[in-house]
Amino acid sequence: EVVRALAAEDSTRALPVDAVSFQDEESRFVGCLGSRSLIGALTPEMEHAAVDSDGVALIDALREARLADVPRLRLSRERYAGFIEAHIEQGPHLEDAGLRIGVVTGIVGLRSIRFVFRGQQNHAGTTMMARRRDASTALYELANHINIAFPKVAAERSVWTMGRVRVEPNATSIVPGYAELDLQFRDQSETPLDAFEAIVARLVSEMNARGGVTIEALPTRAPIAPTRMDAALQTHIEAAAERHSPGSWQRMPSGAFHDAGIVSASIPSAMLFIPSLGGISHDFAEDSREEDIVLGCQVLADAAASILLDANAGSARDCATTR
Amino acid sequence: EVVRALAAEDSTRALPVDAVSFQDEESRFVGCLGSRSLIGALTPEMEHAAVDSDGVALIDALREARLADVPRLRLSRERYAGFIEAHIEQGPHLEDAGLRIGVVTGIVGLRSIRFVFRGQQNHAGTTMMARRRDASTALYELANHINIAFPKVAAERSVWTMGRVRVEPNATSIVPGYAELDLQFRDQSETPLDAFEAIVARLVSEMNARGGVTIEALPTRAPIAPTRMDAALQTHIEAAAERHSPGSWQRMPSGAFHDAGIVSASIPSAMLFIPSLGGISHDFAEDSREEDIVLGCQVLADAAASILLDANAGSARDCATTR
Repeated sequence: EVVRALAAEDSTRALPVDAVSFQDEESRFVGCLGSRSLIGALTPEMEHAAVDSDGVALIDALREARLADVPRLRLSRERYAGFIEAHIEQGPHLEDAGLRIGVVTGIVGLRSIRFVFRGQQNHAGTTMMARRRDASTALYELANHINIAFPKVAAERSVWTMGRVRVEPNATSIVPGYAELDLQFRDQSETPLDAFEAIVARLVSEMNARGGVTIEALPTRAPIAPTRMDAALQTHIEAAAERHSPGSWQRMPSGAFHDAGIVSASIPSAMLFIPSLGGISHDFAEDSREEDIVLGCQVLADAAASILLDANAGSARDCATTR
Repeated sequence: EVVRALAAEDSTRALPVDAVSFQDEESRFVGCLGSRSLIGALTPEMEHAAVDSDGVALIDALREARLADVPRLRLSRERYAGFIEAHIEQGPHLEDAGLRIGVVTGIVGLRSIRFVFRGQQNHAGTTMMARRRDASTALYELANHINIAFPKVAAERSVWTMGRVRVEPNATSIVPGYAELDLQFRDQSETPLDAFEAIVARLVSEMNARGGVTIEALPTRAPIAPTRMDAALQTHIEAAAERHSPGSWQRMPSGAFHDAGIVSASIPSAMLFIPSLGGISHDFAEDSREEDIVLGCQVLADAAASILLDANAGSARDCATTR
């Protein structure tokens, strides 16, 4: 829509813009599959190892979609002045502050750990408490201690989540012998992430020293480092936001991961947010107001135009935008 | 085997014994289905409501097994001097004490509660900690607090277990909006069971008062009251144990539930245990030594004979034994 509007307007018709829609940011196979592929960060090893949760291999899915032998697009850095991604905030900050546009300063880093608890499965009536090696008891204790200890070293916007649990055999009348717990934590800076990791290491080693249940802490994915959005591109978006929605925008970090975090490794990248209704995300209730979507498109179009006019003062380069 | 041995021996051939093997003690449909049916405690309502975990209804299973129209056996109380059940201990007490026979004094009572946690599902990156209504965080806190508080009011052999957890949508990157936790607790006396229930009520009401996640505590099954085994029958088993294994037996409660707990509501009932290897139960590793099985059969046969000889001093009555 933004590209169509730019092409329809006499003053912006000459500006070269590419629109891109990336595949599989949410990681059916590999997180940010499309942007990784575009900048050449999707290695053949990753491509061959990737399998979805139903056991379908990425290479088989590519073959079925008749994409296996299609040559891969590769971003040519010299063609682009930058990349702008527009997105719903997926959080409550804009709505809470009564603002309508967020100019993203950076994207948080993310680390995640899977805890594996090994005890002894047994009868819930005859196995006395002192003798139990109950994997779920250890899980509840570690999780609750993490929730007590993390706030003491957290930064203002640090978040952590333990949203996936597996207990075996997961029966009311059986002392569990095996359990898993996933912990994920994010911040804009490495400092609290390092502090969280140190707390986890201490808690696990204290609990392992007591004996009974043994706990292993395994990384579940490669850590994602915090990334900064390009300062010059941010200035263009801010100017456009101020023009269309004076006083109703703010700079803010992104707590969610986005393709711009990948693309920023290759060309200058930036992002803008519009508000989420109720801050709800990853739920069917996720939504935005129509007028905020329209405003976001205006700011995006305007920022893209001013970036390209600036760049054309030097040489003619494209500006890529998404959504 | 015991009944065959009694029938083969001149001195016991005349003693009338029934052997019974009960269906579904472990509750595919209803716990202790067979013994409940035999004593008339399986109501038509229970029979119609019962469904297994795959959604198969008991009445359909009965129809498929061609048992739907077969008249139900009903225990006639006046025919029996009593009921003796022989069982593996399913616990470590006999092995730990170096003993070979346990004479069961009573069967523990059992209560169970399902906690339902309702919060708000959300994005694990953008939803700040202060704003979260994380169902799993509340679950870990309640479970860990139960594990800290219960030992303060527990009796020597009280046990409690939280072996079943459900977290939705159970994904690493999503703040869970819904969770379930099952708590089960057992003791020989109602006193610690009442104390556990009071602790649970206090913890739940404290957490609900804080707001955020709401917790409901629902009973998952009808409570089972502690039951006593018949004293006269116990004396016969003790005498038989002392005869075959002098000094190597003890009185003990059963921490697991058994059909004898049901049958004791109708006729005098008793139980004997043989040791479990390593105290392991509800696991494929559950086992007993061959010589303990043989000894258990000798004690069972001998006890049945002496009970019947005693009863015959009055009138001729059968003695039912299982396994």
